[in-house]
Amino acid sequence: MPQSTKTAIMVIGGAEDKIHGKEILHNFFGRSGAAEARIAIIPSASREPAIIGERYLTIFGEMGAKGIEVLDIRDREQCNDALMQSYVENCTGVFMTGGDQLRLCGLLADTPLMRTVQQRAQKGEITLAGTSAGAAVMGHYMIAGGGSGESPNRSLVDMTTGLGIIPEVIVDQHFHNRNRMARLMSAIAAYPDRLGIGIDEDTCTLFEGDGTLQVIGKGTVTILDPAELSYTNQEKVGATDPLSIGNLRLHILSHSDRYDLRKRVPSFAAYRMAQE
Amino acid sequence: MPQSTKTAIMVIGGAEDKIHGKEILHNFFGRSGAAEARIAIIPSASREPAIIGERYLTIFGEMGAKGIEVLDIRDREQCNDALMQSYVENCTGVFMTGGDQLRLCGLLADTPLMRTVQQRAQKGEITLAGTSAGAAVMGHYMIAGGGSGESPNRSLVDMTTGLGIIPEVIVDQHFHNRNRMARLMSAIAAYPDRLGIGIDEDTCTLFEGDGTLQVIGKGTVTILDPAELSYTNQEKVGATDPLSIGNLRLHILSHSDRYDLRKRVPSFAAYRMAQE
Repeated sequence: MPQSTKTAIMVIGGAEDKIHGKEILHNFFGRSGAAEARIAIIPSASREPAIIGERYLTIFGEMGAKGIEVLDIRDREQCNDALMQSYVENCTGVFMTGGDQLRLCGLLADTPLMRTVQQRAQKGEITLAGTSAGAAVMGHYMIAGGGSGESPNRSLVDMTTGLGIIPEVIVDQHFHNRNRMARLMSAIAAYPDRLGIGIDEDTCTLFEGDGTLQVIGKGTVTILDPAELSYTNQEKVGATDPLSIGNLRLHILSHSDRYDLRKRVPSFAAYRMAQE
Repeated sequence: MPQSTKTAIMVIGGAEDKIHGKEILHNFFGRSGAAEARIAIIPSASREPAIIGERYLTIFGEMGAKGIEVLDIRDREQCNDALMQSYVENCTGVFMTGGDQLRLCGLLADTPLMRTVQQRAQKGEITLAGTSAGAAVMGHYMIAGGGSGESPNRSLVDMTTGLGIIPEVIVDQHFHNRNRMARLMSAIAAYPDRLGIGIDEDTCTLFEGDGTLQVIGKGTVTILDPAELSYTNQEKVGATDPLSIGNLRLHILSHSDRYDLRKRVPSFAAYRMAQE
């Protein structure tokens, strides 16, 4: 299959392959312009930004990117830096690493630099990728943390505000790997006007700007669609009481499956191929 | 609320309260006839049947049951025992403990004793309860074991045949506590003519024989309804490949919520009360 060169917003569930096939990172590289790519790496979610920045710099360098800069932002004031601003105005791809999503939002939310990245990504001028914490920040509402191994309940998930790059979704990452279904359900019960997207490790949800998403990588993407929600007691019960939730629609998507965000309908790769 | 004295099939997610309020065990005691109850305890799932049998014997004895027998079946031949057979023909309640569901099925499936229990439970003559392994055996298809922390895939769940007491369901227990959503989804993808029922610890699904189920206890019951399943690649992919599943309907039920098994529609306690 020829790889698309269209720009996209790439939401990666963490732990993407960095050694062998590197499917997801190659896809990012291609969609950022391949040999013409000028890539900005934002390692600010991490407590070891220099190390993680260098790791991705090496990977994209070996792929042959024309330019790569690590924007090692450790202070909000750096987001006014003219050189960095100039770089993100002219780059073709931005990659946000893993770490702590609260740290990433704290450093970048509502800064001139992030506004430029967001606007250019939403216009389709650049490919923006985020993995793990870099994925968590994509929605307007963000899962800051939470637990697993309990009945769905309000206290199972800590919600805050994300970067709002894809406002209509709530993203959860390392999804089945860290057993996060109950916390995403608890989040969606609180914000049933959003779409829940749980992304497994080494798996990526590609938003191509045409109102659909597509899955690549080794695992699955779980869609929790509350459009037909009939009932929840979310606002009525105590923080640790078990929730009631009626009528969620659930899809499990794997490689090359798509989902229409407007119609809220999945389209499965094997089914599409059989039709063609 | 007055406690129902109707017989029921009680499917308990394991780890039910045995010390404090004992809500679920009290409910079983009441539905088995309270002071008139003649209870059979089947501890055969356990590798320590004497200890676990004694534990429930003490609990139901303290509640005031008229008669209690531990049917400590360790060999299929015991299931032809005339005294045991006579006891289950005249008892008012049967309680199957936790342990290993394969062991329980191996000892009891297709024996005269179990046929009597099943027929009397299905006719509403007795209350039959099973907790943990005793819950797992309720369906025609049974989850014998499996894993968690992976994308849904065929190898995540080991399926075999259960006791078929409620043939139309596939039960999973310790559900959110042991993060079993992915394995129940994998089971339902394989048997989409069944209804998936995931029961949390200290939580019970009551089947009252009127085509509805009701939830009691501390946690939630998850209903995975594949009636509108649009697609799965379950039969086409390798055992460890991630699954695609389209259009599962998902409900989370908590205390006093009900679900109509024929119409496949939930009815929430707080909503019902607001209507009344």
